[in-house]
Amino acid sequence: MNTPLTNLLQIPIPIIQAGMIWCSGWELAAAVSKAGGLGTLGSGSMYPEQLELHLKRLRSALMDEESDLSIPFAVNLPLLYPQVKDHLNLIETYRVPVVICSAGSASKYTTRLHDAGCKVLHVVSSTRFAVKAQEAGVDAVIAEGFEAGGHNGREETTTMCLIPAVRQAIDLPLVAAGGIGSGQAIAAALALGANGVQIGSRYAATTESSAHQSFKERITAAIEGDTRLTLKDLTPVRLLDNAFARQIHQAEREGASPQDLADLLGRGRAKKGMFEGDMEEGELEIGQVSSMIKQVLPAGPLTKALWEDCLKTLRNLSAFTDLT
Amino acid sequence: MNTPLTNLLQIPIPIIQAGMIWCSGWELAAAVSKAGGLGTLGSGSMYPEQLELHLKRLRSALMDEESDLSIPFAVNLPLLYPQVKDHLNLIETYRVPVVICSAGSASKYTTRLHDAGCKVLHVVSSTRFAVKAQEAGVDAVIAEGFEAGGHNGREETTTMCLIPAVRQAIDLPLVAAGGIGSGQAIAAALALGANGVQIGSRYAATTESSAHQSFKERITAAIEGDTRLTLKDLTPVRLLDNAFARQIHQAEREGASPQDLADLLGRGRAKKGMFEGDMEEGELEIGQVSSMIKQVLPAGPLTKALWEDCLKTLRNLSAFTDLT
Repeated sequence: MNTPLTNLLQIPIPIIQAGMIWCSGWELAAAVSKAGGLGTLGSGSMYPEQLELHLKRLRSALMDEESDLSIPFAVNLPLLYPQVKDHLNLIETYRVPVVICSAGSASKYTTRLHDAGCKVLHVVSSTRFAVKAQEAGVDAVIAEGFEAGGHNGREETTTMCLIPAVRQAIDLPLVAAGGIGSGQAIAAALALGANGVQIGSRYAATTESSAHQSFKERITAAIEGDTRLTLKDLTPVRLLDNAFARQIHQAEREGASPQDLADLLGRGRAKKGMFEGDMEEGELEIGQVSSMIKQVLPAGPLTKALWEDCLKTLRNLSAFTDLT
Repeated sequence: MNTPLTNLLQIPIPIIQAGMIWCSGWELAAAVSKAGGLGTLGSGSMYPEQLELHLKRLRSALMDEESDLSIPFAVNLPLLYPQVKDHLNLIETYRVPVVICSAGSASKYTTRLHDAGCKVLHVVSSTRFAVKAQEAGVDAVIAEGFEAGGHNGREETTTMCLIPAVRQAIDLPLVAAGGIGSGQAIAAALALGANGVQIGSRYAATTESSAHQSFKERITAAIEGDTRLTLKDLTPVRLLDNAFARQIHQAEREGASPQDLADLLGRGRAKKGMFEGDMEEGELEIGQVSSMIKQVLPAGPLTKALWEDCLKTLRNLSAFTDLT
């Protein structure tokens, strides 16, 4: 397929699997990349030695011995991560084809990553930061709406409103994220002006996801209204409802200070929930679209099915225009 | 066009103009209906004698003398409105073809309205209430996402997530609302499974809108992040940023009780802002999509242009499927 995003990333299907903390190890990334999408390691929950292990395994899973070429994959790099320099060194050493930067300024490492031969994508939640990312020289922008799981923007702009606005503001390939878990939603994102999509929640609940089995089951049991954007005065994050989330909401309602909230959050909450399976005291990051996820499926066939459903939706829509 | 929604409403273009308080008098409704969409009177800000005046003028603007038939139009009826019984009598007397019920239970008046020959549409913000509306026998459902202006649901489900969920849950014609102000967004809504759209904010800033000129100018000056869903503990409502909205946010942050917030809101705030033009002390209800509205346009040509842009977007997408 000859589109700006698939050309840039050298992938046949314009679906990027989000590099979610505690969910996105080498097995998930390998399954998605092998199916034709872009698999991504979520380095935000890995120590450098773990990232190295995952890079080795992923490279070996995706390497074609004969051509000495790897199927494309990505690493998600949260720029506020304490050991970001070690991660950068590993990205260079292991010749990572695509780096998806988030949670920080695009001007910081784009040149260095380009020098290392990486394509650089930058995650934003507002048009203002999309323009900044373009100015910093990134290769594509991922614009993520309010409905997305995990960390999120302060403006609360939804995917429906964000994508057309960013599309008007920048010329780069544009990836839509937030609320996308079906072929219909991919088609909608393309209608809004995106060149492709990034999907998180749906991949968190796949066979190859490294999330705890209890978290996967909690995702498929989620109903509408079960997630909420919270910790708005600290760092806005969308969480699944549980005892911990209710404690945070209660504290916010009672006017807790950012420091009070940081203390309540403590350390290791996300690992406790998403990786260790404590469904009440852990922090469970997931998007609104979780209410539409009913099954834990293998990520490869899922990737192909999502794209087929998107094409089917687009074909049905073209029948719609024939009516008029 | 032979689609479930256009057949039901007997209109050529599946665009419904929302019946917004203080914006939606007979001039706006007439312009939209004449252009082929469904114009709607916003009865929520009218005393019965005003509604009667608007019904007379609208009927006369839309009546074809020869055939004694009227071009279709609608009245928006907030079911919690104190004088709802008087409004119902007027709807019967003036043989209103379509009634869009909101803010209340669909089981309340659907039978009565059907007996009067009205088509009944019901506005919901969740799948649960969409199912209830279908059970109550309404003819179509309008599902409105978190990004919409004015009153809104507690689940905060965005249009991107809400429409596919409602589509799966009900068989009735489905109208998407929230975040829709362009042909691209209409195309996206159709991709998500809607049969048409309801558009509010974009029509609030038209020539024929009865909103105060200052409010129209404020809408076209709005930037991303300028609206916020607020009064969540009272009745969630999306407001444009101004001195009043900041006062409410501050009170909420400090843990104000619902009664404190009701006192702060007081009476007549929406009229003060949207109709009388007090841009600082008035309540300004508008959607997130306001940041994309740059011009005050006449509503008739706007309606036609929105639909043309939607068809163009759909045609471009069908070119996309030809690639694969």
